Amino acid sequence: MSTYTAEQRAWAYLARVAEPPCGSVRLLVEEIGVVDAARAVCAQMLPPGYDEVTELTRARAGSDFTTSDLDAAARIGARLVTPDDAEWPGWALMALAQADTAERGGPPLVLWARGPATLDAISDSAVALVGSRAATSYGEYVASSLSAGIVGADRAVISGGAYGIDGVAHRSALASGGTTAAVLACGIDRDYPAGHAQLLAQIATSGVIISEYPPGTTAAKHRFLTRNRLVAALSSGVVVVEAGRRSGAANTAAWARKLGRPLGAVPGPVTSAMSVGCHRMIGDGLATLVTTASEVLSLVTPDGAGGPNDSPTRSTDALTPLQKRVHDAIPGRGTATVEEIAFSSAVDLSAVRSALAAMDVAGLVTPHDGGWKLL
Amino acid sequence: MSTYTAEQRAWAYLARVAEPPCGSVRLLVEEIGVVDAARAVCAQMLPPGYDEVTELTRARAGSDFTTSDLDAAARIGARLVTPDDAEWPGWALMALAQADTAERGGPPLVLWARGPATLDAISDSAVALVGSRAATSYGEYVASSLSAGIVGADRAVISGGAYGIDGVAHRSALASGGTTAAVLACGIDRDYPAGHAQLLAQIATSGVIISEYPPGTTAAKHRFLTRNRLVAALSSGVVVVEAGRRSGAANTAAWARKLGRPLGAVPGPVTSAMSVGCHRMIGDGLATLVTTASEVLSLVTPDGAGGPNDSPTRSTDALTPLQKRVHDAIPGRGTATVEEIAFSSAVDLSAVRSALAAMDVAGLVTPHDGGWKLL
Repeated sequence: MSTYTAEQRAWAYLARVAEPPCGSVRLLVEEIGVVDAARAVCAQMLPPGYDEVTELTRARAGSDFTTSDLDAAARIGARLVTPDDAEWPGWALMALAQADTAERGGPPLVLWARGPATLDAISDSAVALVGSRAATSYGEYVASSLSAGIVGADRAVISGGAYGIDGVAHRSALASGGTTAAVLACGIDRDYPAGHAQLLAQIATSGVIISEYPPGTTAAKHRFLTRNRLVAALSSGVVVVEAGRRSGAANTAAWARKLGRPLGAVPGPVTSAMSVGCHRMIGDGLATLVTTASEVLSLVTPDGAGGPNDSPTRSTDALTPLQKRVHDAIPGRGTATVEEIAFSSAVDLSAVRSALAAMDVAGLVTPHDGGWKLL
Repeated sequence: MSTYTAEQRAWAYLARVAEPPCGSVRLLVEEIGVVDAARAVCAQMLPPGYDEVTELTRARAGSDFTTSDLDAAARIGARLVTPDDAEWPGWALMALAQADTAERGGPPLVLWARGPATLDAISDSAVALVGSRAATSYGEYVASSLSAGIVGADRAVISGGAYGIDGVAHRSALASGGTTAAVLACGIDRDYPAGHAQLLAQIATSGVIISEYPPGTTAAKHRFLTRNRLVAALSSGVVVVEAGRRSGAANTAAWARKLGRPLGAVPGPVTSAMSVGCHRMIGDGLATLVTTASEVLSLVTPDGAGGPNDSPTRSTDALTPLQKRVHDAIPGRGTATVEEIAFSSAVDLSAVRSALAAMDVAGLVTPHDGGWKLL
């Protein structure tokens, strides 16, 4: 199966030799090209100024998994996507290069992808739905409803493939015939979590599974945090459906803020520990409160339709205060005379008459049985 | 029972001759004194510039209910409170004179009070809990919990005496041995709503029932709106527990904003129509999201304790990024050798050793069985 180009082999080698993401390796590639960069790292003979690359690659430089990684991907119909490829989501990842990313190393060097959806198409349209693994049935219901609404608007749903909110978001998108993308904290060939093996297979059939970790990589705590930044970066906006006091979803939310992605959070019962994180984000002004798919779509496309302020106006809204008092003085059932209305509202008779005339024209009241009644 | 002073009689007459609140009558009293103002209105002989008073009092000027109003109050142990009285909550009502009150006429001319709590004491401490009449059991639970927490902090709970959230707020305050005040849209002698007759009697026994409407006045739609401004004005802050899309509570909330009172709203399930109004207020940035009595108390006393940002910090929060990677590479159970940690974390051996040493000192890891384990 080893019909790989020198460039592909070099990218694959560098993708594993340092724990992703590794900013200094990326800079090295930008300076001397990917093939020479791989050679220099392999020989541990780096150009001046790249001591950090030496440091970060020393532990793994001698172990070459290049062919086995590429073969492992090919066996499951997956592919290595590099900045040389047309589907590289360079625009979306640019925010990672600009954000304060000292801690998590900036954009990924490469991405591994499994499934027919292309990464550029995903990053153009996807909304991230994230939340607690220990979701409540309320959270699952809301995630399902939002996901269906998002794919109904021809957008993809991106999430982390985890139990709870993530899983429901993926499933609902699939059930609605939409596209969904799962960004994993392990290799694209690992069924993690194990209980999601079938779900991941379905995502790989119609959507795409994405990881910056080489095939075979196991999930680890720091990889979840690193993965979260990709969920945010590859989305047009992030919505946290449920989150406890210290939730991984809060980390994805923080990345959304750093990367300038709109951030929404769904409120819930104050009695639910799984809504504490969402309430905190909203209360601290970090996230916008969202309750419907329409509000989510408004959030990620601010000039779109379906905003929160499109409620109908009541027909009496246009009345003057005096007209309102006259209106209120007419009983809900039956009629009142002009004199009764004047006494009840403490409005002068002539003013009552002119108010009634104006409201008659407006279709709010009508003369009836010698008095007036509401319409 | 007619042992009333000329001033009391004059206040009582003016309180009914125009529909409260009536700004121009209040100005007339300020200019010529209450006794002369009452005489002038009764004779419909007003000083120049008071044509509006003539307009607004013409319908009722000839009907004198003064003695019967004062007697009706006395019969049930209620009292007329005027700006001449020590308990007049002038400070709290000042905001009504300053706010844009064209529509609702500014401060009340007088207040009728029934119950031992004084109006100045109420306005010094009360937090308003308001919400939908058609409350859900969730909303009632939260209102009850917040009310108990508020009176537990030696503050009064003020509300509108209505079914739903209002009633639960009053009841919970009473059950917790606290003080509660109900501001009515009818006379202080009316049991409105009828189903709250017993609750209103209990409030009148330990707290206070307040109205700007003379005894016997029936509830009317415009009076609810007028009443709502008093709930907000007499409070240190307003919290909306549940509110539908077009709720009276939204009107009280709007008054809180106009009067500069802190405004909080309780989130709820997005599936509940009774939380739509709260979510709207929070989402539009009009209200602060509150979930607990402690957050309510922080809202109304901004320099108080119990704010939303007092969560404990995690002990690994102080680690450097490299130390965190080393920390993450140690399994949750069992031990790992320095070499295993170096490979797993892709951190150089010497750097792993110094990170482990630093984390050992910090009490996060410890040497065990020739390797290292988490503490």
